[in-house]
Amino acid sequence: MTPDTASLRIDTERLVNRLDELGRIGAIDGPNGERGCARLALTDDDRAGRDLVVTWMRDLGLIVEIDEIGNVFATLPGTDPDLAPVMTGSHIDTVRTGGRFDGNLGVLAGLEAIETVMTAGVEPSRGITVAFFTDEEGARFPPDMLGSLVYVGGMALEEALDVRAVDDDARLGDELSRIGYAGPLPAPAARFPHAFVELHIEQGPILEDEGVTIGVVEGVQGISWTELTITGRSAHAGTTPMRLRRDPLLAGARIADGVRRIADEIGGDQVATVGRFEPHPNLVNVVAQSVVLTVDLRNTSEAVLCDAEARFASIVDEVAAAEGVTIERRTLARFEPVEFDADMIECVEATARSLGHSTRRMPSGAGHDAQMLARVCPTSMIFTPSIDGLSHNIAEDTHPDDIAAGANTLLHVLLDRARI
Amino acid sequence: MTPDTASLRIDTERLVNRLDELGRIGAIDGPNGERGCARLALTDDDRAGRDLVVTWMRDLGLIVEIDEIGNVFATLPGTDPDLAPVMTGSHIDTVRTGGRFDGNLGVLAGLEAIETVMTAGVEPSRGITVAFFTDEEGARFPPDMLGSLVYVGGMALEEALDVRAVDDDARLGDELSRIGYAGPLPAPAARFPHAFVELHIEQGPILEDEGVTIGVVEGVQGISWTELTITGRSAHAGTTPMRLRRDPLLAGARIADGVRRIADEIGGDQVATVGRFEPHPNLVNVVAQSVVLTVDLRNTSEAVLCDAEARFASIVDEVAAAEGVTIERRTLARFEPVEFDADMIECVEATARSLGHSTRRMPSGAGHDAQMLARVCPTSMIFTPSIDGLSHNIAEDTHPDDIAAGANTLLHVLLDRARI
Repeated sequence: MTPDTASLRIDTERLVNRLDELGRIGAIDGPNGERGCARLALTDDDRAGRDLVVTWMRDLGLIVEIDEIGNVFATLPGTDPDLAPVMTGSHIDTVRTGGRFDGNLGVLAGLEAIETVMTAGVEPSRGITVAFFTDEEGARFPPDMLGSLVYVGGMALEEALDVRAVDDDARLGDELSRIGYAGPLPAPAARFPHAFVELHIEQGPILEDEGVTIGVVEGVQGISWTELTITGRSAHAGTTPMRLRRDPLLAGARIADGVRRIADEIGGDQVATVGRFEPHPNLVNVVAQSVVLTVDLRNTSEAVLCDAEARFASIVDEVAAAEGVTIERRTLARFEPVEFDADMIECVEATARSLGHSTRRMPSGAGHDAQMLARVCPTSMIFTPSIDGLSHNIAEDTHPDDIAAGANTLLHVLLDRARI
Repeated sequence: MTPDTASLRIDTERLVNRLDELGRIGAIDGPNGERGCARLALTDDDRAGRDLVVTWMRDLGLIVEIDEIGNVFATLPGTDPDLAPVMTGSHIDTVRTGGRFDGNLGVLAGLEAIETVMTAGVEPSRGITVAFFTDEEGARFPPDMLGSLVYVGGMALEEALDVRAVDDDARLGDELSRIGYAGPLPAPAARFPHAFVELHIEQGPILEDEGVTIGVVEGVQGISWTELTITGRSAHAGTTPMRLRRDPLLAGARIADGVRRIADEIGGDQVATVGRFEPHPNLVNVVAQSVVLTVDLRNTSEAVLCDAEARFASIVDEVAAAEGVTIERRTLARFEPVEFDADMIECVEATARSLGHSTRRMPSGAGHDAQMLARVCPTSMIFTPSIDGLSHNIAEDTHPDDIAAGANTLLHVLLDRARI
């Protein structure tokens, strides 16, 4: 019944053309030929993007369903309707100054994979579903990954519908109805997929730096965000001798140096960043009164992340004592790492290699819908290289050869999982 | 002819009352009972303050003269008109959120000293002049110490009159005429004083910290201000491994730590401060693209200040190389140290001690009119303690006992210098 599928390949030109066409909705043209995109969740541009993708789904004859939080699912049925389908997908909303690949690649490559399967006359036992989830970016309606979070039951539907927009205070549920995407399918879902795999651009520089084509994603880093408020004593920079100073800027600088030391000492995938640093009053001839800074620690291992947090706490205590400043701590965010399914990880890796692509196992440094799906079914992700590591940037780009490599890997992972 | 003067003392209550009365012009009342002052140079409030002080000068029968840049001189003539007078004085303009003592104390204590001399019937050989100089703060019309700079010939009159206000672009010369203080006396002066001594609040914490009443000022620190612009590579804090980072915030932090090390290693009076620190884009999850920071180095020795600058340059080079960032340097200000006259310094010290006050030789960390006068005549300064070291702050305050100690020291230094 099912022909040999090993030689099947997606149509790269068709996929790139669809990426271009979807990218024209909310397009941002940069001064140096960049082609960025701004399609914030549940805006008119988001509706136009959704309508275009749904049209493509319907044109293929897929079964299109929309759930109560606006997630859209397009399914090619399998030969055995009792089996849960295999799912792929991502999102089509973007940040305010985003690119054309973040999210969109995963959705359109999923659609492309299904079209390739259909064109070849392949009839897998399980259905294959491609989804796009509502408000993955969280740029207009926090938190991010909201649609997939509701889908898996991690956030109550009513709570999600009541979220207010950061810009105009619009209610999410009202905006969802306004653009016509408040669907009837229950959220959370009544039945979850057999497996989930998401293709996404890396959004970082590792694959490009190492000359590797496919990132095999083992999980999502845990995140620990802390805001420190360091209070010292403002003083005249000319008249106050060093021994009488309690300088919060110096304390903050030593903490930033210590944060780098944490990453150096732990090594591996540990990342540690001070990204915000705001002295008050911030004047050339005044020792600051206070500094607010943020620390971003991430690791794929919860135990190692806790170790990093403990080292950070020690550094803060030592610096505060040495400079005589007081330091308040506030947790801005704390997420445990997500570990993807070992079998799914192996499937992605073996599939990419069988297609002749170089691979590298790696964590995801950013959040993705896949980490929500990982709560309810075996899940992994496929990363393709980001040129210059750029994302959330109108210069975001990925080479067509890498798009093809990622989409073909996705196609064959889906086929592998869709046959019993 | 001249009676014994050793027992002469100023009238503290009269001086404190005049400080209060002058402080009511442009008064800023703080939430905790603070009594600050805002009398920016050449504003209507500055005119009102000038008018009040000039009225007091005229009421005493002093000869009041105003020069072309608006500096005001009130002189008690000496018995020998061929001798150059001894001068004291300071300024009555303030910063935007200033106190009641900065500058005002030196002017009103000078007036008080002269009144004390007159009341006692003392007739010194040399005249005694009390001056207030235009725009010492430079808060409205940069640079600071403008009036005394023009007085000593360090800046051409026409150039000074053409300076524009930082707030409303008003021309200094126009504002001077508008408030009626463009006088006929030539600036620079035709004849300079025999000596100059200025009483001022310390504006720092050293005297209070050490329990010393009178600071004997040996000179003014040299100042070296540098702005650094550090450029790295903006990157995602989650997806960018440490080895691929070029983080300008980390580089800035290491420079700030190095700047403190400069002060620690040089020791003595060396001060070193990073006061401004501005990352861009300044977000929790983004490695910054650039940081602008400022470094303030001061020392009383030009040779040591040059050593500090050389150490700073090495630190900048080392940090830039280690983190792979580029660092641009811009000199914001560079002034050589000013050394006061050895004989005047000894006179201030001996006089304060003869009055029973504890003394400490020290540099001035801030700029004062006295450093301009030091270019043309033997000069020194007398410092009184600042409560909590505060100045340029509405909480600026000095205890009446310390005001009395400073003013009596000023009185007897003037008497000493006014008798041949």
